[in-house]
Amino acid sequence: MSSLSTDHNPLAFELEIADWVNSHPLKLSELRGNVVVLYFFQMLCPACVIYATPIAKKIHELKIPHLKLIGIHSVFEHHEAMSKKSLLAYIHEFRLNFAIGIDQPNEKSHIPKTMEKYGLQGTPSFIIIDPEGYIKAHLFGVPDELSLGLFLGKWLGRE
Amino acid sequence: MSSLSTDHNPLAFELEIADWVNSHPLKLSELRGNVVVLYFFQMLCPACVIYATPIAKKIHELKIPHLKLIGIHSVFEHHEAMSKKSLLAYIHEFRLNFAIGIDQPNEKSHIPKTMEKYGLQGTPSFIIIDPEGYIKAHLFGVPDELSLGLFLGKWLGRE
Amino acid sequence: MSSLSTDHNPLAFELEIADWVNSHPLKLSELRGNVVVLYFFQMLCPACVIYATPIAKKIHELKIPHLKLIGIHSVFEHHEAMSKKSLLAYIHEFRLNFAIGIDQPNEKSHIPKTMEKYGLQGTPSFIIIDPEGYIKAHLFGVPDELSLGLFLGKWLGRE
Amino acid sequence: MSSLSTDHNPLAFELEIADWVNSHPLKLSELRGNVVVLYFFQMLCPACVIYATPIAKKIHELKIPHLKLIGIHSVFEHHEAMSKKSLLAYIHEFRLNFAIGIDQPNEKSHIPKTMEKYGLQGTPSFIIIDPEGYIKAHLFGVPDELSLGLFLGKWLGRE
Repeated sequence: MSSLSTDHNPLAFELEIADWVNSHPLKLSELRGNVVVLYFFQMLCPACVIYATPIAKKIHELKIPHLKLIGIHSVFEHHEAMSKKSLLAYIHEFRLNFAIGIDQPNEKSHIPKTMEKYGLQGTPSFIIIDPEGYIKAHLFGVPDELSLGLFLGKWLGRE
Repeated sequence: MSSLSTDHNPLAFELEIADWVNSHPLKLSELRGNVVVLYFFQMLCPACVIYATPIAKKIHELKIPHLKLIGIHSVFEHHEAMSKKSLLAYIHEFRLNFAIGIDQPNEKSHIPKTMEKYGLQGTPSFIIIDPEGYIKAHLFGVPDELSLGLFLGKWLGRE
Repeated sequence: MSSLSTDHNPLAFELEIADWVNSHPLKLSELRGNVVVLYFFQMLCPACVIYATPIAKKIHELKIPHLKLIGIHSVFEHHEAMSKKSLLAYIHEFRLNFAIGIDQPNEKSHIPKTMEKYGLQGTPSFIIIDPEGYIKAHLFGVPDELSLGLFLGKWLGRE
Repeated sequence: MSSLSTDHNPLAFELEIADWVNSHPLKLSELRGNVVVLYFFQMLCPACVIYATPIAKKIHELKIPHLKLIGIHSVFEHHEAMSKKSLLAYIHEFRLNFAIGIDQPNEKSHIPKTMEKYGLQGTPSFIIIDPEGYIKAHLFGVPDELSLGLFLGKWLGRE
C-alpha cells in the first residue's frame, strides 16, 4: 500500500505554486522551526480521495503546535478535468480546510514543477520535513496512521 | 444515512439522457423482465464517491441474471467541474465499468431532467424498478448492503 | 474469505442441541415456510467475533417476515474456555439477542453433533435452508453482505 | 469513543501481576529509559477485542526502539468466563504475541489490584509512561491511531 524511504536527507526544495487555496502564499523557508508535511494529491486519484486526504485533513485539524500540513495539487494526468475551477468544487464538496497549493504546470512536461523537483512516483505522496528544513521521509501511497504519528511525533519531540 | 420510501409505485419514468458511457443507449421500456436499479450520482459528491458508487459497481459486477444497474450522472451543482470530459476522467480513474447515462440538462432549472422527473432529494439516490416497470423503492443516501440485497433478491425471486 | 457451495440440496438435518439461549427449543421441522439461516460460530473464533456475528445479528434485527436466524455454538477446540458459562458472558457483553443453540457435544469426537452432521469445515459457517426444508447453500467464512442478501431475498421472493 | 487525561503525572505504580503470558515477569522500575504503554483489557470486552487490541498488537509489532507495550488482563466482571485457561485460548486464537500480565485478583473487591491502583474507569484503557517512569496520559476507550502515534512519538523524540 505504501513505501517509505528515509535514505536521502537533502534540504527541502522550495515549492513552486501557481495559486493558493485556503491560505496566503507559503514558503518552506519561512516555516523553519516546524515539522512540515507536504501532501501531494490529485482530486481524481482514488487512493487520495478515499484514504489519504482524510489523513491529511486530520493532521491539519489536530492543530498540533509546530506541525504544519500543506496540500499540493500536482496534476500529471487528465489536466482538463482537474482545473482550478474543478479543484475548488472538490475542495468545497469534501470540506477541505487546509492550505492547498496548485503545483506550477511545466511547459516541458506533463509533470508539474514541485512534483518534478521532489522526484515523486505518483499520488498520494507525503514528504516530511524537519524543523531545520531537511527532508526526513518520502512516502508513496497510503500511510499507516499509527506509524505516521510515531514518525512525526519523534521530530516534534526533538525540538 | 439513508431513507427508503416504498409508498408510491408509479410506472418508472423514461430516462432522458444526453449521452451514454460504457453502453449503447438504454430505454427502460426495453428492459422489462429485469429488476432495474437506477443509481443517481455526481462525481464530486463525497457519499457517492466513497460509499455508494462501490455498491453500484458491485451490483454490476455480480452479474446476477435479470438484474440491471444503470448509473445516471445527474449534475445539479458545480456544473462546470462535472462536465462530460471530467466525468470520463473520473470513470477512467475509478474503473467504473457499468452503463452510465449523463442526465439531460434542463434549460429552465439547475436540476437535470431525469432527476427532476423522479423527484429526487439529492445524490446518492437509488431507484428500484420491478420487472413490469413499476418503481418499487426510492432510496436517498447510502444503503445497507444486506438490506438492499434482500430487497432486490425478493423481486428477482418473484419472476 | 469465504466459499459458497450450492451443489447438494439434501433435506436439512435436524439440530442436536444441548441447551438454548434467548429461545425456547427450536426444531427445523417446525420452521417450514421460512427461509432459515443457521449460523455456526465459536465465541473465541476471531472471524466470527469481528465479522460474521455482526452479520448474523443484523439478519435477526431486520425482522424480515419468514426469515429466521438461528445461531449454533459449535465448539470443536478449547472446549473448557467456551463452556456454557463463558458463552453466557460473551452473549451478554456482545449484546447478542438471537436464538442460540449449544451444539450437542460428541462423546466420540471433538466435533459436536450438529456440526458433524452438516459436514462443516470450520467456523464461521452459514447454512441456508429453503421454506420446504432443503439446504440451498453452505457458506464457510465471512459472506459479502450484498450477495448474501440477494441469495436470501430470492428464496423469500419465491414463496 | 475515548477520553484522554494528561493532568496528573505521578510516578507510575508498580504492576501487581499473578501470572505472565508471552514474557518473563516485568517490572516498570526495570524499564526506565523506555516509553511504556500499559494496555488494560478484558478478553470479553467488545471494544477491546474489535478495536483496541489490534492497536496494542500493532504497537508491539512495529518494534520501535525504546517503546514497550505491556498488556494487562484486568478482569472486573464475569470472572469465571475469563480465567487463565480461557485467556490462553483467546491469546492463541487471536495470535496475541505481546507480553500480557494477569492482574492480581483482589480479595476485597471485584476490581483487580493494578487496575485499582491506577484508578481506571474500565476497559479498554491505555496508560502512557515516560522514560523516567512518570504517567503522562490516561486514555479510556479506543484511541485515534494518528493522535496516539503523535503522543508516543513526542516522548520517544525527547530521549
